[in-house]
Amino acid sequence: MSSNDATSFGTPDEAYAFAAPFRAPRGSPIRELFKYVGRPGMISFAGGYPSKDLFDREGLERALEAAYRSDPIACLQYGDTAGALPLRRSLARLMGARGVDLGPDDIVVTTGSQQGFDLLLRTLIAPGDTALIEEPAYPAAISALRLAGANIVTVRTDRDGIDVDALAAQLYAWPPASRPKLLYTVPTFANPTGSTLPRERREALVRLAQAERIVLVEDDPYGELRFAGTPVPPLLALADGCPGARDWVVYFGSLSKIVAPGLRIGWAIAPAPIARRMIVAKQTSDLCTAPLAQEAARHYLDSGSLAPHLRSVVGAYRSRCDAMLKALAHFAPNDVEFSAPEGGMFVWARLTGGRDAGEVLKRAIERNVMFVPGTAFFVHEPDPSSLRLSFAAPDEAEAFEGARRLASALSF
Amino acid sequence: MSSNDATSFGTPDEAYAFAAPFRAPRGSPIRELFKYVGRPGMISFAGGYPSKDLFDREGLERALEAAYRSDPIACLQYGDTAGALPLRRSLARLMGARGVDLGPDDIVVTTGSQQGFDLLLRTLIAPGDTALIEEPAYPAAISALRLAGANIVTVRTDRDGIDVDALAAQLYAWPPASRPKLLYTVPTFANPTGSTLPRERREALVRLAQAERIVLVEDDPYGELRFAGTPVPPLLALADGCPGARDWVVYFGSLSKIVAPGLRIGWAIAPAPIARRMIVAKQTSDLCTAPLAQEAARHYLDSGSLAPHLRSVVGAYRSRCDAMLKALAHFAPNDVEFSAPEGGMFVWARLTGGRDAGEVLKRAIERNVMFVPGTAFFVHEPDPSSLRLSFAAPDEAEAFEGARRLASALSF
Repeated sequence: MSSNDATSFGTPDEAYAFAAPFRAPRGSPIRELFKYVGRPGMISFAGGYPSKDLFDREGLERALEAAYRSDPIACLQYGDTAGALPLRRSLARLMGARGVDLGPDDIVVTTGSQQGFDLLLRTLIAPGDTALIEEPAYPAAISALRLAGANIVTVRTDRDGIDVDALAAQLYAWPPASRPKLLYTVPTFANPTGSTLPRERREALVRLAQAERIVLVEDDPYGELRFAGTPVPPLLALADGCPGARDWVVYFGSLSKIVAPGLRIGWAIAPAPIARRMIVAKQTSDLCTAPLAQEAARHYLDSGSLAPHLRSVVGAYRSRCDAMLKALAHFAPNDVEFSAPEGGMFVWARLTGGRDAGEVLKRAIERNVMFVPGTAFFVHEPDPSSLRLSFAAPDEAEAFEGARRLASALSF
Repeated sequence: MSSNDATSFGTPDEAYAFAAPFRAPRGSPIRELFKYVGRPGMISFAGGYPSKDLFDREGLERALEAAYRSDPIACLQYGDTAGALPLRRSLARLMGARGVDLGPDDIVVTTGSQQGFDLLLRTLIAPGDTALIEEPAYPAAISALRLAGANIVTVRTDRDGIDVDALAAQLYAWPPASRPKLLYTVPTFANPTGSTLPRERREALVRLAQAERIVLVEDDPYGELRFAGTPVPPLLALADGCPGARDWVVYFGSLSKIVAPGLRIGWAIAPAPIARRMIVAKQTSDLCTAPLAQEAARHYLDSGSLAPHLRSVVGAYRSRCDAMLKALAHFAPNDVEFSAPEGGMFVWARLTGGRDAGEVLKRAIERNVMFVPGTAFFVHEPDPSSLRLSFAAPDEAEAFEGARRLASALSF
């Protein structure tokens, strides 16, 4: 990260009348770890990045060439704010395979799914409005809610994700004057916990959102990275089984974790009145998502390369996750609990003996292994006893060795 | 544009509790014209797009290939939120040629300069804060201010851009409780008027911004498209001649009008405390600008292709503008005034005889020529007597013929 410190500007912060959410900007605790990533021999479980070793470089090069050669003007000129129609058609087919029946006009292409959530917040959330979020949660979602000035209220999760009964009780007791407008969740292979919401809870959650008229935000970047267990339909697919519920679900998809983040291609599926406003907000945000990347993504999706690529990525993540969990089971002390995800990129660990993950991190870095302390994933009261371990980046042998080193750091 | 109307969602707008700026979203009047653009034989002076015939397709294909082949991982993985260092180095050199002395750490890469302004507003403007904007003005800048909930106050312009004396008088009389936080301007080849602020006014404007502690926002997408007259330094370059002024200028650059919009590459240069907050806002907006496009842009800039490409584009715009103005001088009635820009993409016309540009547009469309009525460029009280004519898209012969048709539409 550029710190922008090495400038000739001498005016102190206080000279500027910043908007309220920016009075005290927070640095990301995850980014603080970056300085250690490049250290020789370091094995990192810290990143939330897909493995660079697993990109389909050749397939993407072919897609890029095909896109540019078949229609250079479409790659170089401004494009529709809602996204290029050919890409939206390809994404509609992809969503069909996920069990969601829709057409290209139901899809808005976004500059990563991060932008989708940001655009949604800009249409729905005025400063002071209440928004619900599962906890622990994806930090950039928390940041986006903070930037929007939302009154953030957390929703309890257990090893299977959101506790829908507890949420229902929470909502029934809610004062009518400050009803929450939305609930954000990553129901499949959650970041940071790796947990997946079971089908019954999904159906109950969709019913609850519809009954309570709360926009249910389903962020689904990892859903296709399943390496164990039985697939569960997205909330958006299940909404079709509950009359009226489709009007209360907003879905975000992304190519970042299944193809490549560098394309910055995400998509949003929202009820029409919300989608229309998101498009207006996108006009002032970036006019359109890079047409060059949209065309390349479309050619990649239409090439048939995604399915074999996903099989290869999912196989690698399975063996990396297995290696990590095997080493942890063998070497780690008994007072540490680990989740066993069925897919995605993350294992969640809890120190039941009262130790602090920040202290463990210091000892881990001494041993050339890194992770993200769980405190990064909490809104109000950080839990110092949890750790997020990503098995996406290291190869199988490194995953085993890194987990062995981590076990050593945990043994004090 | 996708209207997102063809969905199965039946819930009316009123069901959702939208944030205030979205209660009544406005469609862009310019986008309303899109349906006529594809009509056979239509000559369009309406678009604000660079000419698709003038893209350096081969040079960009070489840059894209070189980028991907030399570092596919940099193209495919997440990148720094502030932008890829190699691209920021190239942009720093480009800014040096514009008379601005800075380093790569002073530059934030944005997803088009549109995003730069959006990020700036998110750091500076809370709902109700006052923002100044020249009038007539770039519509997407007006939209961004509206979306931010700003109290928008317009600044008077004449044929040379902002009337700085009038602005100074306006500011001296300002109530201290609601000081404006920023002033937005396109000082060089403005959209829509094509006007360029003279050097003396620039120096006075920079001094005024510094003295009044107002952030002076210089949007400069067209500055390198000069085909007549003498170059004038950017406000940012002139700020170095006024102690303390550099702390009050924010500059936005863009490759959209000089290379290709489809890359979505812009950049922001801001005082460090503002830049830091813009980077935090960008983390929640789109994490980073598409690394693929950044790498391609960097290879293009470093290839030396930009200078000869610009000579070719500027030459074409000169002859198109000349052809348009020649036909208008010859055929248009005497009660229509036209600006004579020294560069950029736009001619501004005024109907001094009391006619309405909307009526002229209807007659123009019957004659297969289009333009944008000036009403699109006003904040509070649209002026029905003005027209924006872009000479960027039609070739020289079409520019002449289109202007001849327009003159006929004006003769009633």
